[in-house]
Amino acid sequence: MVKVAILGYGTVGSGVAQVLDTNSSEVAISAGQEVSLKYILDLREFPGDRHEQQVVHDINVILDDPEIQVICETMGGIEPAFSFEKSALMKGKSVCTSNKELVAAHGPELVELAKVHHCSYLFEASVGGGIPILRTLNTSLKHEKIDAITGILNGTTNYILTKMDKEGAGFATVLKEAQEKGYAERKPEADIEGYDACRKTAILASLMSGQYVSFEEIETEGITKITQEDFSYARSFGMAIKLLGMIRKNENGFFTIVAPFMIPLEHPLASVNKVFNAIVVHGNMLGNTMFYGKGAGKEATASAVVGDLIDCVIHAGSHIDVNMNAEHARLSDNGSFVHRFFVRVPEEDADAALEAFGDGIEHITSDEVAGEFAFVTDLISEKHFHEAYQKLDRAKGYLRLL
Amino acid sequence: MVKVAILGYGTVGSGVAQVLDTNSSEVAISAGQEVSLKYILDLREFPGDRHEQQVVHDINVILDDPEIQVICETMGGIEPAFSFEKSALMKGKSVCTSNKELVAAHGPELVELAKVHHCSYLFEASVGGGIPILRTLNTSLKHEKIDAITGILNGTTNYILTKMDKEGAGFATVLKEAQEKGYAERKPEADIEGYDACRKTAILASLMSGQYVSFEEIETEGITKITQEDFSYARSFGMAIKLLGMIRKNENGFFTIVAPFMIPLEHPLASVNKVFNAIVVHGNMLGNTMFYGKGAGKEATASAVVGDLIDCVIHAGSHIDVNMNAEHARLSDNGSFVHRFFVRVPEEDADAALEAFGDGIEHITSDEVAGEFAFVTDLISEKHFHEAYQKLDRAKGYLRLL
Repeated sequence: MVKVAILGYGTVGSGVAQVLDTNSSEVAISAGQEVSLKYILDLREFPGDRHEQQVVHDINVILDDPEIQVICETMGGIEPAFSFEKSALMKGKSVCTSNKELVAAHGPELVELAKVHHCSYLFEASVGGGIPILRTLNTSLKHEKIDAITGILNGTTNYILTKMDKEGAGFATVLKEAQEKGYAERKPEADIEGYDACRKTAILASLMSGQYVSFEEIETEGITKITQEDFSYARSFGMAIKLLGMIRKNENGFFTIVAPFMIPLEHPLASVNKVFNAIVVHGNMLGNTMFYGKGAGKEATASAVVGDLIDCVIHAGSHIDVNMNAEHARLSDNGSFVHRFFVRVPEEDADAALEAFGDGIEHITSDEVAGEFAFVTDLISEKHFHEAYQKLDRAKGYLRLL
Repeated sequence: MVKVAILGYGTVGSGVAQVLDTNSSEVAISAGQEVSLKYILDLREFPGDRHEQQVVHDINVILDDPEIQVICETMGGIEPAFSFEKSALMKGKSVCTSNKELVAAHGPELVELAKVHHCSYLFEASVGGGIPILRTLNTSLKHEKIDAITGILNGTTNYILTKMDKEGAGFATVLKEAQEKGYAERKPEADIEGYDACRKTAILASLMSGQYVSFEEIETEGITKITQEDFSYARSFGMAIKLLGMIRKNENGFFTIVAPFMIPLEHPLASVNKVFNAIVVHGNMLGNTMFYGKGAGKEATASAVVGDLIDCVIHAGSHIDVNMNAEHARLSDNGSFVHRFFVRVPEEDADAALEAFGDGIEHITSDEVAGEFAFVTDLISEKHFHEAYQKLDRAKGYLRLL
């Protein structure tokens, strides 16, 4: 029997306890032995809870107990989670976490600590909730040359964009409704400004590079500027609009971005709707593979934490390689990666747009929008796009095309 | 350095050599050592081929060479592949294969042989081509109570159905075109009658049950009876038509079937088109997760074989559990699993249909079809459906609803 602890008895932490309770025999078979939850760290008491006797308030009770072999950190945030994880790893206790902020900020240091102390640091639940993407990248796909990862990584924004598209409502209206339903936070910036997707993109980019990509280096645009006019144009030429985290690799390095994109309806990401997440991985031999599922939610996220916990138990005393280290991956200046861009300007600026972007543009019309000149550019780099776009000072917005 | 052999230098076998060549450094990093291709077994010579020096014609050269640790069997068919695999495993050489016929027919025996001889028998490439589904079921999702697996498992039939839907062509026309393009075999029965999907469903059902489901026990219907009228009705009430392999589990046992289904357009499988495959797994904690990719094709399938090869190298000297044994899973009489069925009869048989299926039916119309009475039944069992359906001796066909 192996004894484990949970740090933080909130949504995900209580979900981990629930998975261990509900699926105890499956967990035991998978781990090769019974898994027993010995402690739950939380500042609060939980009178009447099935696990109230396991609740402790002092991290040192857990850290000083040599019986505890694996710790599930489900508190979130940087501190005190970072200090707790470091202390655990230094004592040779493996750590599994759903804490994307912490993994994105300090992943390489924690992985290195785990390596030195012959234990593991796993974080499957930090990207895509229950979708088993990180283990797959580190096992089944590790021999592929991965040159692109493209994902819908945030359920809240995908829900908002789906509603805007299907119901024709404006951003503010849909956000308010999402907040009322509990799909969006009262302080929604982490989702709608793309910060959450950015953390997950940074983690994927780090694993793809085998090095480290800091979330601060990733250009990030949210969905707050998307309008019904954008959806009208998108529908008129067979596109969906999705917030994507994108990583591409070529001989010059990595290109990373988080931004809303127009996606052709026949692309598998275009039909990923509501709160679902999906990640497309392109390998040189495999082609495109997509992984789809619940990107958040108590049980799904907790299930991914428990999957990691089991892996730690199976590999007790050794380190599971997660292909991330402290060396910074070389992010390319964006000149070697190109997109097409969709741009809207007032009708009277059509000539200015042609002058800025050249004759190669494709004019786009929508029956539902008047008084505008909308177009799609040739393939151009971020740098060239922004140089041209800033000449159009009355421009009404732009979107990249996948 | 580890030495390996390929049995059968056809499409998949030459793909395996290509993956080992093209991604040699990624393979070495993943396996922890260099992987060297020492032999290729084939009856033919390959003058001018990069690997012509490695080609041998006698299996015993490979079996008797103690340097060979892993064998990739990419010949297909039952014999001589079965004898070759058994001999290899009995000598403690791990075997990786894409051979779905053999795995479906003799998987448990081969897994047991591998266990006894402290080596592994892996067959990721036998289901879903390059889609990493089997390893995921046996690792990341092993602690889930999986109660349903539903997949589009055959690219040829999915291509035909996609073409029929999008282009309005009849089955025979599209089949002929698919044959000309090389997407369908000249003898297409294995695909269009559902036999190929049935083998893959049997393998998935075996892994899901942890026991053995024989492909001969799975009720299998192909796509040859699907007409343009079916697609007209499907479109009129928001459905796609897909050939599905389905496994469901409840307290009475397992229900398995391979048959064309109508699927709501908002279901993630509905937008899996052309030659792509996808598999939806439902776990009690995880909910639905979908895995999507190329279900066939030289490089993608070969990449899955190489993924298994690497796993065998990493676990040399020990057995990788694949959760399949010789005990037959209990397949339920179908009374405890229910679907809705879509049925078409001549207009004049509307009363007979009402009498056979009761008042609970939902009448379906299509602007494009005249002279028929089409309807969807209540949820009923296979048994009750067939009892009622056989009373309608002029019925024009039926489809299950997902």
